[in-house]
Amino acid sequence: MKRNLLLTPGPTQVPARVCEALSRPIIHHRTPQFQVFLKEAIEGLKEIYQTKNDVYILASSGTGAMEASVCSLLSPGDKVMIVEGGKFGERWTEICQAYGIPTQVIKAEWGKVVGPKIVEAALKKDKTIKAVFTTLAETSTGVTFDIKSLGKVVKETPAVLVVDAVSGLGVEDMKTDAWSVDVAASASHKGLMLPPGLGFVSMSAKAKTLMVHSKCPKYYFDLRAYEKVLASVDTPYTPAIGLVVALLESMKMIKEAGLENRFAHYRRLAQATRKGALGLGLKLYADESCASNVLTSICVPKGIDGEKLVKIMRDQHGVSIAGGQAELKGKIIRIAHMGCLDEYDLLTGIACLEKVLRELGYRFELGAGVASAQKFLNGGLSL
Amino acid sequence: MKRNLLLTPGPTQVPARVCEALSRPIIHHRTPQFQVFLKEAIEGLKEIYQTKNDVYILASSGTGAMEASVCSLLSPGDKVMIVEGGKFGERWTEICQAYGIPTQVIKAEWGKVVGPKIVEAALKKDKTIKAVFTTLAETSTGVTFDIKSLGKVVKETPAVLVVDAVSGLGVEDMKTDAWSVDVAASASHKGLMLPPGLGFVSMSAKAKTLMVHSKCPKYYFDLRAYEKVLASVDTPYTPAIGLVVALLESMKMIKEAGLENRFAHYRRLAQATRKGALGLGLKLYADESCASNVLTSICVPKGIDGEKLVKIMRDQHGVSIAGGQAELKGKIIRIAHMGCLDEYDLLTGIACLEKVLRELGYRFELGAGVASAQKFLNGGLSL
Repeated sequence: MKRNLLLTPGPTQVPARVCEALSRPIIHHRTPQFQVFLKEAIEGLKEIYQTKNDVYILASSGTGAMEASVCSLLSPGDKVMIVEGGKFGERWTEICQAYGIPTQVIKAEWGKVVGPKIVEAALKKDKTIKAVFTTLAETSTGVTFDIKSLGKVVKETPAVLVVDAVSGLGVEDMKTDAWSVDVAASASHKGLMLPPGLGFVSMSAKAKTLMVHSKCPKYYFDLRAYEKVLASVDTPYTPAIGLVVALLESMKMIKEAGLENRFAHYRRLAQATRKGALGLGLKLYADESCASNVLTSICVPKGIDGEKLVKIMRDQHGVSIAGGQAELKGKIIRIAHMGCLDEYDLLTGIACLEKVLRELGYRFELGAGVASAQKFLNGGLSL
Repeated sequence: MKRNLLLTPGPTQVPARVCEALSRPIIHHRTPQFQVFLKEAIEGLKEIYQTKNDVYILASSGTGAMEASVCSLLSPGDKVMIVEGGKFGERWTEICQAYGIPTQVIKAEWGKVVGPKIVEAALKKDKTIKAVFTTLAETSTGVTFDIKSLGKVVKETPAVLVVDAVSGLGVEDMKTDAWSVDVAASASHKGLMLPPGLGFVSMSAKAKTLMVHSKCPKYYFDLRAYEKVLASVDTPYTPAIGLVVALLESMKMIKEAGLENRFAHYRRLAQATRKGALGLGLKLYADESCASNVLTSICVPKGIDGEKLVKIMRDQHGVSIAGGQAELKGKIIRIAHMGCLDEYDLLTGIACLEKVLRELGYRFELGAGVASAQKFLNGGLSL
């Protein structure tokens, strides 16, 4: 009878309707039937991206979509800036370095973000920067970067803004066009409530002029090949057909709910999670000013083994949250609130957290976390 | 009531048991539960590859697995040989060229293969060749290359043998270890009866020594990253979890049938398809000596539009076969016999082919194709 609740930063829970779509008989991709699906998928993604830019669908994980953004835009030796504050921001640097692209890294202290003024000053100093890479929701620390302000700054320069929106798309508001996001990489298994296996990249006209001159070696991730067949509603290589079909179902659900309502839903779940943690006397890890609606990072109390906490919750109780990564291993826990989740899933997660924290010797009034979250969720009602 | 019969060279039909597996609730990949699945998946693939070599599982199409093989083994400027006779063989050349790897191409006339002696002579002439790339089943023309003989030749040189087994694995016998295949790239949506989205690469010890020194720029397709986490039963990036889980189900079916029995099954279906075509007075496109068990290519009779034939079969009757590619467009049709198919599927395909050929004005005795195939399938029994 053990549940399998995923409060993890990808994969996220897949709705039953999407599971059903995944089980449908396969169809061939070079057919008018699939073309209708592919077209609908691309149009639907544009709505979620809030863009009129083209969106390419890849058969890859989110990292593949990130790499496609790097190697399709740049040439070895091009100078770029990485604006980051965590493990996924570091991935931009790693990918650029793999291609011989020198990086100027502007690092935030973990749990914080980089403000637009620092970026503005750095871009003024070096006008040869071709691209600025950053992260929408940095799930290793639980912060959301201020993409809107970064967009305003980068827009005024020759550089393009490339955002890792893998963990944010459809959960945290990102207005691709209004905020001048030139390229945004994302994936299927986070806000879009699908299994992993699809990568997405949106690309502005400004970014396309860069793409034309790119000299990084590439084949599968050469977005020019995707661009070339876009008009004929095709993909250069066999797409992950089953996931594209299921994407239509998950996007239908997102449309039914309304994009703005979904952002509000996750904002509410994130706030409830923070209230729950505070109700247990725990400290939040991310700075309040930039705490993410995608994932909440919570400091593990002294004397408690964070790794063990996560393991017991998952293996004994069927409730999956994430532990800390790299230098935060064992020191924080991370509760994601994206994908197919309601407030009761969150309360279940907090109740399980309470049970195991108590088991491991942390002292608090049992129920205090759940009650704090409930009070917030019910508009602060009390006796 | 229209059926959706796929006699196409990928995707192939997905069995109901595998569809069910695809619809199961998602689990997280960094868990002991998924590790059990991943380990079982890798072990199962090794059996189908007939190898003790490591096999890496990627979230990509077959082309991604091919590119991973190129960029993980080689460095720009390394000399390689491409032994090919069709569109998929040409893909090796395209990928190598994208990375600045000079290629010596040994081309077979389309519909034929390159014999081992030509390759042997060419390798003797140039001992600096690092890798020989070829194709197991070239589905653009319907031939199967003699990998066993090529393996014998390449084995005696410093070069590694890299095989595109995307369309052949699990359908056409390939004894990776016994035939000295150093690297074989494959994918989920052909012989393995899954939707597209998984790529596989097997790698020998000889190939691994090459991998260590590879300098091609890469990140997602850097197989060293996969190698590094293999011992801890992990993947460097989020795997296509749902497809890996479904792979276990399809491999269970393959094991139940027996690998050798499956090879015999597809050989029988291929022979029946050829008999069926000959019974209709049609000419086979591929040379008899190397006709594939994966796919049968048939010449379209004079005056008949091959593209129209394929379109009517698919759109009006729900039976999908493939047309010709590149210079063969409209000139051949291709009937694949891989994936989840029995002899009645084949007879259905031939019956539908007869119906539409007749409609388009080709003259023959209706039923002659099906009867010829039936006679073969039933051991040549007649009145």
